[in-house]
This record gives sequence, structure tokens and C-alpha cells, in this order.
Amino acid sequence: PTQPRQARSAYFWLHALATLVGILVGVVGFGVQQGVRGLTLGLYMVSQEILMQQQDRFYAGAAVFVLVSVAYALVASGLVVFVSPLAAGSGVPEIKSYLNGVHIPGLLRMRTFLAKAVGIMFSISGGIICGREGPMIHTGGIVGASVSQAASTVFRWRSKLVFLKYFRTQEYKTHFLAIGSAAGIAVSFASPLGGLLFVLEEAATHWYQYLSWAALFACVTSALLGGVLRQLAFGNTELLNMSFFGSQVGMASGSSFPLADLPFYIIIGVCGGLLGGALPLVQKPLTLWRFRNVNTPLLRLLEVALVAFMTNLFRVLIPALGGTCVAISSLDFLREQGNRASFNCPAGSDQYNNWAVVVWNSLEMSLQSILQLESPDAIPAGSLVSGLVFYVLFLAWTYGMAIPSGLFLPSLLIGAIQGRLWGILSHSVWTSRSDILVTNYAFIGGVAGLSGYTRMTVSVSVIAMEASAQGLAFLPAYITALVAKFTADMISLSIYDLHIFMKRMPYLEPRIMEPNLYFTTHVRDIMEPSIRAVYTRSKVRDIIQVMQDVGFGSFPVVSPLRETHMGNGGTGHEYSAPHRTLRYRDVSKARRVLRLTRPASNGDGISPSENENGNDISSETSLDLVEGHSDMRRKHSVLVPGGDYKPEYVDFAHHALKGIISRRMIFALLRNVSQTACDAKALDDDNVQMLHRDALDSAWPNQNKASHESRILAAVPESAMDLYLDLELYLDPNPPLISDSALTAEARELLRSSGARHALVVYLKTGSLVGIITRKDILPEAIEEVIQNREKPARAHGS
Amino acid sequence: PTQPRQARSAYFWLHALATLVGILVGVVGFGVQQGVRGLTLGLYMVSQEILMQQQDRFYAGAAVFVLVSVAYALVASGLVVFVSPLAAGSGVPEIKSYLNGVHIPGLLRMRTFLAKAVGIMFSISGGIICGREGPMIHTGGIVGASVSQAASTVFRWRSKLVFLKYFRTQEYKTHFLAIGSAAGIAVSFASPLGGLLFVLEEAATHWYQYLSWAALFACVTSALLGGVLRQLAFGNTELLNMSFFGSQVGMASGSSFPLADLPFYIIIGVCGGLLGGALPLVQKPLTLWRFRNVNTPLLRLLEVALVAFMTNLFRVLIPALGGTCVAISSLDFLREQGNRASFNCPAGSDQYNNWAVVVWNSLEMSLQSILQLESPDAIPAGSLVSGLVFYVLFLAWTYGMAIPSGLFLPSLLIGAIQGRLWGILSHSVWTSRSDILVTNYAFIGGVAGLSGYTRMTVSVSVIAMEASAQGLAFLPAYITALVAKFTADMISLSIYDLHIFMKRMPYLEPRIMEPNLYFTTHVRDIMEPSIRAVYTRSKVRDIIQVMQDVGFGSFPVVSPLRETHMGNGGTGHEYSAPHRTLRYRDVSKARRVLRLTRPASNGDGISPSENENGNDISSETSLDLVEGHSDMRRKHSVLVPGGDYKPEYVDFAHHALKGIISRRMIFALLRNVSQTACDAKALDDDNVQMLHRDALDSAWPNQNKASHESRILAAVPESAMDLYLDLELYLDPNPPLISDSALTAEARELLRSSGARHALVVYLKTGSLVGIITRKDILPEAIEEVIQNREKPARAHGS
Repeated sequence: PTQPRQARSAYFWLHALATLVGILVGVVGFGVQQGVRGLTLGLYMVSQEILMQQQDRFYAGAAVFVLVSVAYALVASGLVVFVSPLAAGSGVPEIKSYLNGVHIPGLLRMRTFLAKAVGIMFSISGGIICGREGPMIHTGGIVGASVSQAASTVFRWRSKLVFLKYFRTQEYKTHFLAIGSAAGIAVSFASPLGGLLFVLEEAATHWYQYLSWAALFACVTSALLGGVLRQLAFGNTELLNMSFFGSQVGMASGSSFPLADLPFYIIIGVCGGLLGGALPLVQKPLTLWRFRNVNTPLLRLLEVALVAFMTNLFRVLIPALGGTCVAISSLDFLREQGNRASFNCPAGSDQYNNWAVVVWNSLEMSLQSILQLESPDAIPAGSLVSGLVFYVLFLAWTYGMAIPSGLFLPSLLIGAIQGRLWGILSHSVWTSRSDILVTNYAFIGGVAGLSGYTRMTVSVSVIAMEASAQGLAFLPAYITALVAKFTADMISLSIYDLHIFMKRMPYLEPRIMEPNLYFTTHVRDIMEPSIRAVYTRSKVRDIIQVMQDVGFGSFPVVSPLRETHMGNGGTGHEYSAPHRTLRYRDVSKARRVLRLTRPASNGDGISPSENENGNDISSETSLDLVEGHSDMRRKHSVLVPGGDYKPEYVDFAHHALKGIISRRMIFALLRNVSQTACDAKALDDDNVQMLHRDALDSAWPNQNKASHESRILAAVPESAMDLYLDLELYLDPNPPLISDSALTAEARELLRSSGARHALVVYLKTGSLVGIITRKDILPEAIEEVIQNREKPARAHGS
Repeated sequence: PTQPRQARSAYFWLHALATLVGILVGVVGFGVQQGVRGLTLGLYMVSQEILMQQQDRFYAGAAVFVLVSVAYALVASGLVVFVSPLAAGSGVPEIKSYLNGVHIPGLLRMRTFLAKAVGIMFSISGGIICGREGPMIHTGGIVGASVSQAASTVFRWRSKLVFLKYFRTQEYKTHFLAIGSAAGIAVSFASPLGGLLFVLEEAATHWYQYLSWAALFACVTSALLGGVLRQLAFGNTELLNMSFFGSQVGMASGSSFPLADLPFYIIIGVCGGLLGGALPLVQKPLTLWRFRNVNTPLLRLLEVALVAFMTNLFRVLIPALGGTCVAISSLDFLREQGNRASFNCPAGSDQYNNWAVVVWNSLEMSLQSILQLESPDAIPAGSLVSGLVFYVLFLAWTYGMAIPSGLFLPSLLIGAIQGRLWGILSHSVWTSRSDILVTNYAFIGGVAGLSGYTRMTVSVSVIAMEASAQGLAFLPAYITALVAKFTADMISLSIYDLHIFMKRMPYLEPRIMEPNLYFTTHVRDIMEPSIRAVYTRSKVRDIIQVMQDVGFGSFPVVSPLRETHMGNGGTGHEYSAPHRTLRYRDVSKARRVLRLTRPASNGDGISPSENENGNDISSETSLDLVEGHSDMRRKHSVLVPGGDYKPEYVDFAHHALKGIISRRMIFALLRNVSQTACDAKALDDDNVQMLHRDALDSAWPNQNKASHESRILAAVPESAMDLYLDLELYLDPNPPLISDSALTAEARELLRSSGARHALVVYLKTGSLVGIITRKDILPEAIEEVIQNREKPARAHGS
């Protein structure tokens, strides 16, 4: 919310940018898919077609296959280890936490994007048990966040377009991250609604209705573009015959879901839940072990090499030992490009290895086969069982390694395998029925697996419905997903939450799981009563001291009561009647919109008289009224004299709260101080410009070395140390407020739903500030500690 | 949020209640459908089969048909006029407003429910151009709200179950209203996701993520139950062969949507938007005319009779004059039960009147025919054009009459007719293509019509996808819906918003349409600086005076500063350190949960020592600390002596804000006063009970005559007038707060997203309360007025 003119067109630009995000994510999604296709094509061409399928060259082919796969995996892992550690895993826990309000430095950087997007191609091609959907959520999110900022620290580029500045806030960055993530899901599964619902179900906490529709715009664009590009890549250039997009995870056509199958669906859901619930149980000790033992780059690479070697060895061994070559029946499907199930059967013989279909193919193609081969005998139960064991064990081992790897596709596949097994059972015992389709069972199984592993229900069902183009599939899918989720939730935390918990991110769950804590404590119990604040006018030296002392992200800004209102003998409760403060009001307005050029100057800002509705305010009157320091303010808009910083905590009984200022803003001001303080002319010249908005935006301390916090502090020259910094113009006069007698649950809801990282606590009776709460204060652990501390003195007293 | 024990199981009970809502709404939806079926069956049996299809009895049949239809319509209208005026129309504008935070008395009453549910059966059977979907949203909402309250004023029944009390708040009532509305959509269209998205798109403003999943529970239950009941009603008792549910708005099987049709879809979207945009243009003068001229019960009934007569006359005339009898081709569809297209063709001849198919059938059956008859020649263009004109004109005339009537089905039908017309055109000019399906065009047209009339996009597309069981339909439907919405929005306000606007409900749009107003004004400009407050202890006489003087829904509660903290010589800024106020804190907790029985009494409440975590507080200490009035409080928990009410406005510089109290709570207390004040024993007895929660809940002044506000006031006996009422225990100590220097846009967002009806304005520097803002203060009209008033003195000064 800055200027009326921008706000008016913001709705349009929001959708335009969302569409741009959709286009970019669609292209990235298509690119990743094509990358995988290219890398896999080469690998299978050499190892399978040139070697394995020829006489006596099976072992050579197998060796080439395993070694090249390990090499691919090492490339992927190298990108994680040496380029960006945040590219490891699926990225979903990190994206969830970021959207929840947790700041994760480096999560959205260009190098993370590159490591993730390129890395996932190599890890999939390297035969690692993983999919590209989770990483697409992460890369899509990065694309979204970058588009909203229209700037790149790598390329040192910032768009100057006015409408883009509107979105250059932390809030919109988060919103666009969510939009990009949704588009990532949409392009992976050709599921625009699924993308939207994923964000609604899993990700967004601070969210507006209108953002949903912008997100859907992005999802539709990316899914449509991804679909069209895919069709074109496969040579279907005749757009006339191209449907909007084909089904991604295909399913037998014309299926319906008879109610009689429902008991089996529930069993499938329970099994999916058990499998998904078991993973975190294995992962927890494994991850702890990794924290302790696999902590050097070399060891992390070695682990990946070992896992890749074992995975691919089994992918060769299982079909070689268990499978037999079977003639391809009437189904054209198995002749499709990308299907490698012919394995070592003689080339051109139209046969396929009935065990290779599950483990030798790429995960995506295996899933397709399991979902589409309608004959119950097409894949023997032994092949399914061996595949199930193989995927479950290796997924548990793989997840959490230093390699980009998504969880969605493996869990879909594992679920579909167990679903198909139940289908075979149902088909063989319930012989009187003719409407049992093992493909339907596999489909339901896929939903159960995905839901069991990820603990999502609605988005999983919608994705399944859209990906299979089956309008009737939602209801049975949803019921199964619910069963799977509840089963898994009884066993363990979700794998995402486990990783969030183990990395100690201050994540706030959508609902309160510990009402004992949140409904029996009050804000005054958990708040931090000792507040570090800064004065409206502070010495540069003092401010630097505060910044070095504390790492908080925001600081209340105060001024001593005696200086402002106590001076005229009042009790501190005086309030000028609203209609007397017309001019003051307009200055405050100018402050809000950050048009900080000096009024009536001919700088590139807009003078206040330009865009107020009819109130013509001269520069003198509008500045005169701010606390009487107009003279100094006019000369040095940033540096003015004022009170000294006291190193002890502020006593709010004798200070008036003016607002809150972010650390980012303070650093921007300090950087500006360094740049202007040495310039005597800038300090004395009557034409000095106030800090421009761009200077604020670009000064955000980030990974870019030039703007590291310590560098900014060090760059402040000694000559500026005794000058005064006036923060009045740059503070936020409307911080989140909460009463000290509010329940902790209410404070939690305030922070969670607003995405704020802190709230000021106000004592209603006198209105004075009495504390501050942050996200960390309302985590269950913190409250438990408070309660325990409270009980200790009580017991000591009682004994 | 009341007690930890309740909060813990709340999530479970939320879903249990949502499922119950789903079951009830599913049954109601099925009941309404069966009611329509029965009434229609009788009407057509007599008029068509017994009379019209026989030799020489055509005119008699037509006369019977028209007259019985008019009689049906009069029954429906009578229910509106004499039973509940709020049963008129679709109810969607009212539900939207209620969910937005506007209180509409009587909207959720039992008699409104009955009038709407029974009325819509008769208005549909009476041939009125309307559907049951909108009314199902309303009736579903009533069911949802009633279930959450588990009480009925009509039956004088209140459930005593503890877990239900948790949901007995205004907030949950609103949430369950939304859940019920979603279930209403779900059962009408067999579209659970569509129901959820309808609520997300159109209805919910103050909404939590977890409510979405409860709503989906309700939607799935109602859709599934509705589907199963419908199948059973049609005799498909063999559940084995029953799919989860069949498509409701059927469509040709196996359709896909070629990209080449996209230009036509866009044209269809534009036409749908034009039709939908034209309706409010006609409705505005018509509604104003109705306000002025059709304002007596008799006139309203007469208007309905006239419209019903004309509508049904044309329904007979059009096929009689234009249509010819055609042999039924291979399609079994036209032989279906409920299809009356045989009109006057000889009985048993297997012929149908090709114009009757569009206007003579029920709207639902006409839509089915248009969506499913694949041959382009099955319905001639002339029939479609006459139907289009007929439906568009009569819909415009009908909507807004005193009769329950939904807009969804007519707009779907109108859209489908125009879509099919474009399909016929496309088919005849684009002869080289074989993949043009007029049914697809009709489907897309239906989406365009629904979106053009209702201005929804996402939910319309999802409903269309689910109702047609076409997984691929979402994307083309969404694109068309967007085009239709934008076209229609360029022409006019939506018909719902028009009616909301004309009824002057303080509805807050999801986004700010007038940034000029909201980003240039501050809370201090628009707030009401003169606040009517009540003292923590006030004379009953004074409180009654305030209640009679002002109609506000909430009042700040204050106490004079000198009494509380000024007494010990401070400046009003003292704040007791948090850890000193342990006992005080627990009282405050007791206050929050409304366990207002006297501590250590053996009443049915829980004494404070019971459920705190380990802090054993005796009754004396816990009460001693509340401002030192413990003696009086112990004797008369409700009535205590205190300061007098001063009729002038409160000066907040000398008063401390304690919290906020709702009008509802004050009336509950006053009613309690009347009941106890006459009983000398109750006043003096040491065992007097504090006000029980049930007494608060049931005292809400509503339409029920016994609890009208004026009656409660009148019932207070003179002997109680000079007693004092202690409000301290009943106030909300955490009211919504906002800084006076916040932008109006921020205040708007606060009210809208929290569903609050007011916020207290705090002057940050001193923390004192300086004003209050309500919903009405932040309507665009109110802000415009403020700005104009501000400019006037400025101009006067300048001249």
C-alpha cells in the first residue's frame, strides 16, 4: 500500500505478474522435463539398446548403466554440496516454513535455483528414487519471488518501473513465492486447481482471497504452457487436434468407481498411511546420524555415490533375476517412447521384461504402466512385491541426502504398487464381479501413498483427479486420502514437519495442538518485558551499538515523554482532537508513502502538494509541525540532533511509543549516512535529498557481500558517529498491537494470520507499551518453559 | 476458545458437526428435489398425458397446465409474503452479506427455512424461471448455523452437551453458515469441490484454513448422500453397480476440447458476459419500481400470478406454434422419465416436439437435452433462439419478485442455449473438421452464462467440471468464465452486489476499489472521536439510559483513572511487572472462560482451582485482587455499587480502558437483574450464583418476543434501578485495536479479515483510547463524506 495511483492498478499488475510467473515456471518445468528426457535417453540408449540387448554384452551394459548413473548422481550432489546446500531434498519443508513467516537466508537465491533445477535433472536421470515435483515447488517459488522483486543481486539489476515497486515488499515477496510454488505443482502434474489447493492446504498462512485468483492465473498459465510445449516436443504440431492438455498420470479410460470397492479403498488407504507413517520413524535416527557423521563435503558426496550405486545395482538385478520376457499384448502403451521395459529381451522382438516394468523404467514410466496396464496379469504380483520393497527401502535411505529429490513421485509409485496388489487380490477372490479394474485400485493406491507420505488430502485428491482427467475420481480419492492421512498421523509426524522440527524452525501449525499451553497462559506471561528500543533521534554511535548488541529484526521507536507532551504539564494522556491536526496528518501521510524527497524541491520524488486530494500544503507548514525540529530537519533530513542512547533497557512508563522500525530500514539509513556524511556539501547544502525509496530497498543486507551487515557498520565514518539520525520519518506508525491480557492463543493467531514476526504488547489500562512478543515466544517449547519457571517459585514457596 | 478441555476436542467435534450438517443438507436437498418431482409429475400427468396428447383436448390441457402452475406459484409467493419475506429470491446476496459481517435479523430463522425450502418446490413446479441451487445455499446455511448453535427458539430447546457450547458463538455460527452453504451447493450440483470453492470465492471473509477442510467434509457428505438417495429413488437399489455419483449436468461422453475451438469459446464467453451484464441494467429500475409500487402483500401476490401466467402461457404457445413432431432417433435419452418433450405429439408414438425440448420441459431437463443431444439437428436453431429470448426476458422480469427463485440454473440454461447456437454455426461453417461437438459448445456456453450472471469464475468452472464428470473441462471452462466475468463487469455490477447495494448493507468488498479514499485518509480522520462508554460499575438506571440512547453493538468499558491507579500518585503509566500479578492473572483467566460461578461454591460451574495447571488459588485471594471491591462482589456478583453514569461523553484522558462489552452481554445481565432483583434472598444470600453461561447465550435479544430489547428494559423493576452492575467479569479484555495513524485501508483490512464490527482506536504516544471505528465508518460513502467535510472549512478559510 503506497500511493493511490499504484494501488489502483495493483490488481491488474498482480495478475500480469502472476501470468508472467506462470509462463516462466511453465518454461522451467518443461525445461527440467526435457533435461531429464535427454539425459535418460543417452544413458538407456548406450547401456540398454547398444549393450544389454545384444548377445553377451549384458554385463558390460549393466556396468555402464550403474557407473553413468552414479556419475549423474554425483553431479547432482556436487551442485548441492558446493553450490547451494539449500538445494538438497525437496525444498517443501523450507518453502512451508518460509511461507509461515520463517526467514531462511539464501533460500531464494539464484544459485539455489540453478543448483536445484539442474541438480534434479541429474538426480532423476541418475536413478535416485525421487521425483521432480517437490523441487519444482521450490524452483517455482524462487521464480515467483524474483519476479515480484524485479531485481537481481547477481546481475546487479533493479527494474525502475513504477508499478513493480509496489510489489517490492517482504509481504508480496512471500505471496509471489506461494504463487510460484502453486505454478510449480500445476506444471508438474498438469493440475492447475491442484496447485492452488496445495498452496491453500499446505503453504499459505497470511493470505488474501484475491491472491488465490492470481495464483490460479499462474497455475493455469504454467499448466497450459507446459502442456502445449510438451505436445510440441513430442511432435504434435497440429494444434487443431491438440486437446487443452492430456492427462499426465494416465488412467484407464471410462473408469467409474463402484461403491462396492469402498472397503478395499479403505484398506488401501490404511496401508498407504502405514507406509507413509513409517518413513519418519526411520528418517529421524537416520537424519540425526547424518548430522553427526556425514558432515563433510566429501562424506556427503560419498554417501550419495554409495546410495546411487546400490539403487542402480538393484534396478539391474531385480529384473535380471526375477523377470521373464513376455510378448507385448494388444496394448500399444508398452511400445511408447520412454518405456524401457524391454530390458534385455531381444531388440525388436516386441517383448518386455515383466519385472523391469516396475523397477527398471524411470519412476514416471513405471507409474504410467502400473496405472494403465488393464490386464491383472500384465505385471505379476512378484514383480510388484519386489518393486514395493525396493522403493520403500531406498526411498527411506535416500530422503535427506545431499541431493535434490522430491517425495511426490516415489510416494505415488509406492502407493500405486500396493494398490495394484490389492486389486489383483480383489480380482482373484471376487470372481463374480466383472467391474473390478486393477488400474482403479492402482490409482486409489497412488492417492493413498501420496497422502500417507505428504499428509495432504484435498490437494492430493484434486491433483489425482486432474492428472487422470477423471471427473468422478475426486470423491473416492478424497476418502482414501483421509484414511491414509489419519493412519499416518497416528504413527508419526509428517516427514516435512519432522525436518522442520529437527532444523528448529519457528513454524506455527495451522491449529493449536497443545490447548493446555495456549489457553491457560496470557501474553503477559510469555512476552519479553525488557524491550530494546531506539529513540526517534539517536546518535549514530548509539544505534550502531544497539545493532551490534542485539539481532532483533525490529525495534520500537520511542521518545521521552517529558520532551513531547509532558512538557506542557499534562499526564501523558493528552490527545489533540483529530480535526486540529490537519497539517500534521498530511506529513504523516507523506511519511507512510515514503516519498521522502524534500518538499518543493525539484528532485525525482513527488512533492506532497502534487498528489493529495486538493490540500495544498506548503513545505514550511507541513514540516513545522513535526515535534518542532523543523529547522534541523530541513537541513539534514536524515541526521538531526536529539537524545542519547542509554545502554540500559527503556522504561516505558516515561517514554512514548512512536512506532516500530525494521532492522532493514536502519541499515539502509546507516548506509546512506556513510555515503553522505563524508560529503560536507551534502550535509550543509539546503538541497539535500531525503533518502529515496530505492536506496532503502536496495540496501537490504543480504548474501551479497557489499551489503553484509558488518560491512555497513564498519563503513560508517568516525566523523558521522556523533551526528543524530532521525528515525521519525521512516518508522511504521501502525505496528501489530495486542493486549497483555490476551490469551496466548490469540497472540499466536495474530502472528500466524498476519505473517508478522512480532507484536507489541500494550497494557490497556494505561495504554503503555509493556513488552514485545516474537514468533519464538509462542512456540510450544517456549511456553512450556515459562510454565515450568512459574511453577518452581510456587513450589519453593509452598515447601 | 474457552477451556483447554474443549479446545482439545474441538477439532474433532468441528468435523463431526460438519458431517452432521452435510447429512442434513443432503437430506434437505434430496427432499426438495423429490418434492419438485412429485409436484411436476402430477401437473404434467394431468395436463399433458391425460389431456393434451388426446384428440381435441389440447386447449383444456393447456388451460389446466397454466392455471395449476399459477396456483403453485401463488403458494410459493404466499409463503414469502405471509411467512417470511427473507425467503424471496435466491438468498445469495443475504448470505454473502451475513458472512461478510452484516447482521440480518431473521435470516436464519426456522420459518425462513421452511418458507424457502417449501416455496422453492412450488416455484419450480409452477414453471417460474428459477433453479433450486441458490435457495439451497440459503437453506443449507440455515441448517449449518442451527446445528452449530444446537438450539431452537421455536422448540424452546437447547442442547446441554458440553462440546456443543464451544461452538455457541457468533463466530462459529457464521462459520457453520458458510459450511452449510457449501454443502448446499455440493448437493445441488453433486460438486463437493465446487461447494468449497464457492465459499472461498464468494462468501468467506474471516476464515481459517481448518474450516475449509471441515467445509469439504460437509460437502462430500451431502453430495455423496444426495447422490445415493437419488439413485435409490430412481430404483437403482443394487449398490454394487452404483458409482460414487453420476454426473448431474450430463455431457456427451469422452469429449475433449480442441485448442482450435478456443476463439469460439471466447466469443461464447463474451456473449455470456453481455447477457449477464444486461440483467442488472434491467433489474435496477425494475427493483426501484417494485420498491415504490409493488409494496402491499396483495400486489406482490398479483405480480407473481401475472408473471406465472405469462411464463406458462408462452411455455405452451412457443412449442405449439413453432415446433413439429419428430421421430426420436437412436438416443434413449429422450425417452427418459422426466422428459416431457413429447408435448402434444400422439402418446406412444416415440416422437418429440423439437421446440418443446427447450421451453416446455423443466429447466433441468431442458439443460440436460441441450447438453446431451449430440446431433446438431436434434434441436433446430429456431427453437433455440425462441428459447433464448423467452428465458432471458422472463428471467429479467422474474428475479426480485416475492418468490423463492435461484439464478444458477436459468443462467446455465441461457448460456447453454447460446453456446449450442454457436456450436451449430461453427459446425456448419467449419465443415472440414469432424471433432466439433455442439454439446461441448453448449457446455462452454453454460459456463459462460453462469459466470456472466453470477460473476464467479473458479467455482463455476469447478462446478461445471464436477457436474459433468469431465476432468479435462476445467481449463476451457475457466478461460471462458474469465472472459464472461470481465465482459459482464464492464457493463454492470453483479446482480447480487446490486441487491446488496440497493438494500444498503455495509458490505466490504474483498479488495479496495477506491484507493483514492483508502490510501489518503487515516483512521483518525474517519473514527468517531466521541465515544459512549460504560463504567465497570454503573447504576442499572444509567445503563438502561445508555441502551435506550444508542444502538451500538459494543461499548468500551472504562473506570476513572483516579480510582484505579491515579490513587497511588502515579501518572497513569504504572504497570505491575508481569510476575507480580500471578493471582490477578488467574482471575482474568476465569473471566475469559465465563466460568462465573462463585469460587468454592458447589454450583454447576467449575471452581478456578479445578482446571488451572497446578496453581491452587483460594476463592478469597482470587477475588481480592480485582480492584479492591471484593466484599461487594462476593455478596452480589452482578450488582455492585460504583461510579455514576454521566450523560456526556467520556473523556479518555482521565479514564482507563478496561475492555469492551457487547450489547448482547449487557442485555443478558439486565435480564438476570430482573430475575434476581425481586428475590430478596437472591440478593442477600451468600450463595448467590454468578451469571451462568447459558443465561448469557439464551438472552440474546432476537425475534422471539420474550427477549425483545424493549421488553428486557421494561422488565427491570424499579427496586433494581439504583443497584450497581459490575461489568468487569463480563468484558472482553482484548478488543481489536488500531493506531490512530494507520491508513484507512489498514483499518478496513482489520475489520474485514477479522469479521469484527468495530475496533478501538489508540493514540500510540500515550496509549489512550481516542476513538472507535465501525464497519459503517469505512464504507466508501462515509469516507467520501469525511473528505468533503474536511475540504469545506479549508475552502471557507481560503475565501
